[in-house]
Amino acid sequence: MSFQKLDELGHRLEALEHALAILGADEAIHMAVGGGEKRAEAMGTLAGMYHRQASASEIAGWIDAAEREDLDEEQAAAVREFKRHYVNLTCLPAEFVERQTNTRMRCEQLWRDLRAKNDWAGFLPALEGVIALAREEAAMRAQVLGLGLYDSMIEQYDPGNRTADIAPVFDTLKTFLKDFVPEALAVQAERLAKRPLKPLSGVYPVDRQRELGLAMMAAVGFDLSHGSLSVSHHPFCGGVPSDVRITTRYRTTEFLSSLMGVLHETGHALYEQNLPKKWSHWPLGKARGMAVHESQSLFVEKQLGRNPAFWQWALPVVDKYLGESWSMDDIIPHVHRVERGLIRVDADEVTYPLHVILRFELEQDLIQGRLQPVDLPEAWDAKMREYLGLSTIDNPADGPMQDVHWASGAFGYFPSYTLGAMMAAQQWAALTKEYPAADRDIARGEFAAINGWRRDKIWSQASRWSTPELLERATGEKLNADHFIGHIRARYGAV
Amino acid sequence: MSFQKLDELGHRLEALEHALAILGADEAIHMAVGGGEKRAEAMGTLAGMYHRQASASEIAGWIDAAEREDLDEEQAAAVREFKRHYVNLTCLPAEFVERQTNTRMRCEQLWRDLRAKNDWAGFLPALEGVIALAREEAAMRAQVLGLGLYDSMIEQYDPGNRTADIAPVFDTLKTFLKDFVPEALAVQAERLAKRPLKPLSGVYPVDRQRELGLAMMAAVGFDLSHGSLSVSHHPFCGGVPSDVRITTRYRTTEFLSSLMGVLHETGHALYEQNLPKKWSHWPLGKARGMAVHESQSLFVEKQLGRNPAFWQWALPVVDKYLGESWSMDDIIPHVHRVERGLIRVDADEVTYPLHVILRFELEQDLIQGRLQPVDLPEAWDAKMREYLGLSTIDNPADGPMQDVHWASGAFGYFPSYTLGAMMAAQQWAALTKEYPAADRDIARGEFAAINGWRRDKIWSQASRWSTPELLERATGEKLNADHFIGHIRARYGAV
Ligand SMILES: [Zn+2]
Ligand SMILES: [Zn+2]
Repeated sequence: MSFQKLDELGHRLEALEHALAILGADEAIHMAVGGGEKRAEAMGTLAGMYHRQASASEIAGWIDAAEREDLDEEQAAAVREFKRHYVNLTCLPAEFVERQTNTRMRCEQLWRDLRAKNDWAGFLPALEGVIALAREEAAMRAQVLGLGLYDSMIEQYDPGNRTADIAPVFDTLKTFLKDFVPEALAVQAERLAKRPLKPLSGVYPVDRQRELGLAMMAAVGFDLSHGSLSVSHHPFCGGVPSDVRITTRYRTTEFLSSLMGVLHETGHALYEQNLPKKWSHWPLGKARGMAVHESQSLFVEKQLGRNPAFWQWALPVVDKYLGESWSMDDIIPHVHRVERGLIRVDADEVTYPLHVILRFELEQDLIQGRLQPVDLPEAWDAKMREYLGLSTIDNPADGPMQDVHWASGAFGYFPSYTLGAMMAAQQWAALTKEYPAADRDIARGEFAAINGWRRDKIWSQASRWSTPELLERATGEKLNADHFIGHIRARYGAV
Repeated sequence: MSFQKLDELGHRLEALEHALAILGADEAIHMAVGGGEKRAEAMGTLAGMYHRQASASEIAGWIDAAEREDLDEEQAAAVREFKRHYVNLTCLPAEFVERQTNTRMRCEQLWRDLRAKNDWAGFLPALEGVIALAREEAAMRAQVLGLGLYDSMIEQYDPGNRTADIAPVFDTLKTFLKDFVPEALAVQAERLAKRPLKPLSGVYPVDRQRELGLAMMAAVGFDLSHGSLSVSHHPFCGGVPSDVRITTRYRTTEFLSSLMGVLHETGHALYEQNLPKKWSHWPLGKARGMAVHESQSLFVEKQLGRNPAFWQWALPVVDKYLGESWSMDDIIPHVHRVERGLIRVDADEVTYPLHVILRFELEQDLIQGRLQPVDLPEAWDAKMREYLGLSTIDNPADGPMQDVHWASGAFGYFPSYTLGAMMAAQQWAALTKEYPAADRDIARGEFAAINGWRRDKIWSQASRWSTPELLERATGEKLNADHFIGHIRARYGAV
């Protein structure tokens, strides 16, 4: 039976994924500094084994045959996802993938070096190489998938998402935010004029912050028997669903940024920990994609963790671990701080979407050949001035050089961040409509009912539905900007 | 060129070994408690991939062809070791290996449970199953290798070691120790009557002990940019040569046992860290075997770490980290404590070899069918009474049930421990003959010259020579008991 062969393949691939995931987390958390070269060699070889096994030509026949076998609904869904993975993995010739990998790696290395030196001219030829290959890649993917160029790139990250659906929603959001950012800043200025910001600085030992983080993780639903919290230079959520490794970093003079980071990664972790275990060796059993994943982290960080109700419960917990008696009036202005800035990763939830929409617009033009890499600094600057009133023309390091995504060839990924934020708001709205006591629960540190809804609607569904189908089944609505706009208006607007 | 194919195979196997080694260390050090099931599944699948790739039938042809190719001496040595590995890996049918793995795993699980209950009768049938298969295994290995039954089992752990060479050396040692143990105990009693043992108890926080351990590791030569120290339930040395993971466990009331454990594992780690890097993907580049590996750990633990000269240097270091001003007269009686006991792993260096020789004698009889498992408790008790004056007849948990080795089918492994102790003494004798300033160096905390000798004679040689050849090339003598006996007599005998 061909389904059986796919099932066995799934077990082999799961073992290699397990090794790669743990080796990757280990590298960032525990590896000795001199271990990197051999680690890269081992992971490269294992990734090659994975690719060879997952793209073997006989799999096409197994999938064809399995589609004609007498399968139950779950198995049929499993075959659909096996096929999707297989097609995405085999639509590029091996020779092309190798050339692309080398070009990307060289560009990433250059980026690390030249961003620090603000050297756009030195970086440009390498980026041009990556973009030329990305255009070739999009053409090949589009051909195989029967999609548009940019849609075929998005499809790798968020199956089912289409530019035609996303662009109007982003336009609505952009129009709203261009006006709303000044409003939110004015509201904030007025409040701060009445009550100046109390600095959050203090002395917060790492072990106390760590205990606080663990307590919050556990309260929010992280299963500490299937995961752990460590330290790494860049926070991440890695490992495997049976053992999720999340990380943070600490500053001993301030606790809020680490704590919010822990909540964000806990959101990713909850999704992984609650995926259906019996599907774990099938593509069907994986998280749906980047946008949905980000909706889960942003749900915990923004919808829960920056909700004032959360801080009613959290302040005594912070006090217990850090011995710091903050009041709601002290903390909330920090939790809801809005600031115009050049850097996406430092942005708050009000300004962040404008950073993403700028990239979404530019990378479509780049992939479709309407914009040339050499013209990026001007194009970036023009949009940055229009959307956020800031110029980057003399500062490409904080303009088109600020992210690694394009250097590493990840076109189509950026929209996921803001799609995640909108989906999180849409999920919160649907949840609170069904369960109006959510705020009361949060204020008591009770997350069981909220997580029950999320497990039912999102986590247990894994890759059963396309990204837009999953959202619509969970919330009863197609993706739209209304709930996110409502959320931002309520939290940051004039009363 | 066939050598090239073997070389490429080596890279693939090295990547899988890397993954298995890091996953294994991670499991003991960092894994979340609930991660075990999936980890076992992943490691089992990866081990299967390793076995399949390392035992593929076409490799036999590559080895044959490579042997006829124009190779330099190093490549020829590499082919010899590829062949040895391949033969050892393929001399048992796959069906047999699978049956044996299941039988061993079941017996190990039972052992964990029934040893705690001192239930020999319940354990016996499972052990009989393992021993029956070990006899079959020995017969098959002996056939392929042209060796005796027990020698064919030893060959897996210490290539080149033969019972005919080891047994007379063990007999000499046994004869000596049977008389010497009472003498050493009498000497100790006399000293303690003059100056009672000062208890080592105190309050030693884990982080201070850890810093002390790291300082000692670094001083003795451990490269902290290619390895680390962690905590695990059972101390071990794992990971990969580019990133060696050693572990210890701490008691906050006592520091010596953890520190001596750290020194022991550091000895293993130095060997791994100093293997020739350019051979790392060939079997030739691996440590020679269990006995040589144990000679490296015991060299550091016993020849260096329990040498009074070491403590002249170490006491101020201990003082610095633990704030405890011990005198030589306080510490040395602890470092040189001798005690008759039932348990091998708790034994000191004087009584330890008798535990090993007892097992060496019994397991030969078991493999050759001269002793039946049902008769083990009596046979064990008889030897225990003869060698150490202790009885285990009513206490099989501390008799033939005390070690996991037989339950897991590792017959031929036990001799490595005492061979390692003898080899370490023999290496120390050869080194001090060439370099008489060794004791002076140690008293100053200088280990560069000592490590230089060891790197030259042992570490850099990897698997270039058989176990007995390596020892003879390093020390100028065949394995003998003289140096170990001299060492024990000098350290523990009447002055
Ligand atoms: Zn995230
Ligand atoms: Zn050892």
